[in-house]
Amino acid sequence: LNTDIHTHIVPSSFPEGLRTGAGSIEVRQTCDCGRADVWVDGKKFRTIDSESWDVAQRLEAMDRSRIDRQLLSPMPELLAYWLPLDRAVEIAAHVNEALVQMVSRAPGRFLALGMAPLQDPERAVLEVERLAAMPGVCGIEIGTNVNGVPIGDPRFDPFFAAAARHDLAVFVHALRPAGVERLVGPPMLTGLAAFPCETALAAVSMITGGVMARHPSLRLAFSHGGGALAMVLPRLDRGFDVLPALREAVAVKPSAQARKFFYDTLVFDPPTLRFLIDRLGVTQLCLGTDRPFALQEEDPVGAVEALGLSAADTALLLSANAARFIGR
Amino acid sequence: LNTDIHTHIVPSSFPEGLRTGAGSIEVRQTCDCGRADVWVDGKKFRTIDSESWDVAQRLEAMDRSRIDRQLLSPMPELLAYWLPLDRAVEIAAHVNEALVQMVSRAPGRFLALGMAPLQDPERAVLEVERLAAMPGVCGIEIGTNVNGVPIGDPRFDPFFAAAARHDLAVFVHALRPAGVERLVGPPMLTGLAAFPCETALAAVSMITGGVMARHPSLRLAFSHGGGALAMVLPRLDRGFDVLPALREAVAVKPSAQARKFFYDTLVFDPPTLRFLIDRLGVTQLCLGTDRPFALQEEDPVGAVEALGLSAADTALLLSANAARFIGR
Repeated sequence: LNTDIHTHIVPSSFPEGLRTGAGSIEVRQTCDCGRADVWVDGKKFRTIDSESWDVAQRLEAMDRSRIDRQLLSPMPELLAYWLPLDRAVEIAAHVNEALVQMVSRAPGRFLALGMAPLQDPERAVLEVERLAAMPGVCGIEIGTNVNGVPIGDPRFDPFFAAAARHDLAVFVHALRPAGVERLVGPPMLTGLAAFPCETALAAVSMITGGVMARHPSLRLAFSHGGGALAMVLPRLDRGFDVLPALREAVAVKPSAQARKFFYDTLVFDPPTLRFLIDRLGVTQLCLGTDRPFALQEEDPVGAVEALGLSAADTALLLSANAARFIGR
Repeated sequence: LNTDIHTHIVPSSFPEGLRTGAGSIEVRQTCDCGRADVWVDGKKFRTIDSESWDVAQRLEAMDRSRIDRQLLSPMPELLAYWLPLDRAVEIAAHVNEALVQMVSRAPGRFLALGMAPLQDPERAVLEVERLAAMPGVCGIEIGTNVNGVPIGDPRFDPFFAAAARHDLAVFVHALRPAGVERLVGPPMLTGLAAFPCETALAAVSMITGGVMARHPSLRLAFSHGGGALAMVLPRLDRGFDVLPALREAVAVKPSAQARKFFYDTLVFDPPTLRFLIDRLGVTQLCLGTDRPFALQEEDPVGAVEALGLSAADTALLLSANAARFIGR
């Protein structure tokens, strides 16, 4: 089963209570053109394709791309960590319900990564417990930080403990990244240049913060090949080798910990993907497409097949690694 | 000539006027042990080895490592962009003089990368002109940002124009990086995990800010293999390919621009270095060691020789690329 671990959804509408007031969110379908605008807090956030919510179109696109199964996760901006808890809980309930509905329309083709209000880790645990009981849910999508606090901060331990306890996979996606003040040029650079660094720093925080050491059964995947992580690891390893204070804090070599994370394949460059396979492990990379958003591979399955791996290794990347990540 | 483009110096002392007051800097040699403490603004900043200022010791260490020539550059914290202009100018004068003195003790073995007070780009241009007239100076070391403003910001254009005009190479070193708020663990993570991302973002800013397009003859090198840059480029290239607004802003494909920068080899992992050679160009990587500070390779020349490159390519990395970078 070719399994795509990185796709996003937006519900076709939001309940009236969420469409007004501070932190409002609305999907405006202004035409019959198959597109809609997402408005967040009274500002147009992004124009999306109806594939974001339309199961039939999604299945067609999957068939064209030879993708048997998609993990559906919320458009990251829906994670709403920055909103008051009550509203974030309402959004989570609505989005998680939309995810479950989409999965129920084609249960063999979809599984869901739900969302939880991590601005309140204890409340997020309740949502994890709700998600664990929902049909078709295999995990949770989280951002790389929660209002600037990296996910490796110990305050999120109860959440990660709950995910591990309920056997839910955790998919980490860049969100409101660090370093945007270092960009010079058009606004899209945030997603292009700051996201990879943000993703690397989030992964590092899970290692150096000891989260993986405390929750060894946690199954965690990072989007976009882990961003810039692979270029940070050798320096971190060197620090681990020569600086006693780091070795004491981290216990297990950073690159060895990184080889327990999963990553998607969405790096847009075959030599870079081969490098990641070499450094992070052929058992840890999973097909990912970021569908239906702008920066995709034309033929994501073909791109993996064209890497020149053995048939067995190609099958790991296209299906078996994802199955291990989600545990099914 | 095996040439090391990445080494640092600290003068053995600072004049009394710089040792007191806000922004004070002092080197305290408290023992005969060959070590000293650098105090910055009344706080102990770092313990350094006498190799930081002692030419004879430096030459011995170079001989042991088969390094024929070193580019000497200030310990980055000496760049003093955050101090009042007058004091920064005084520090620059003292450090640049110390650099020239060290070079004069063994002119065949050393060349200097001076410093300039970039908090005032026009004043920095004067320092560039002074440096251009000093014997043994081949370029300038700058930080990745100046008080949070990335080096690709157009305000620094006069500085880069002056460097290009005077044929001075520019060596970029991470400094007070973005993203430290994303770190969880011991303070040393700033240098280990935030530096690579900071370096990548600075290099991206030189591309997307159009600096390289406006100053095509500028010779620029980034420390630590460009940090995480190589993992950011494919995504940036993909954005360039599919987003018209980026193509318009940047004009030349980001990875093609990146292949005009130079980089040092200090990445602590042979496969990673081979990957950089493949992605950035065998003509663009130059031996670099970060001597005499903590995170070094045991045998930096040997590490390049052990990569399994042809003799011609090994010679590029050990000497010819550096000669092109510094223009001599």
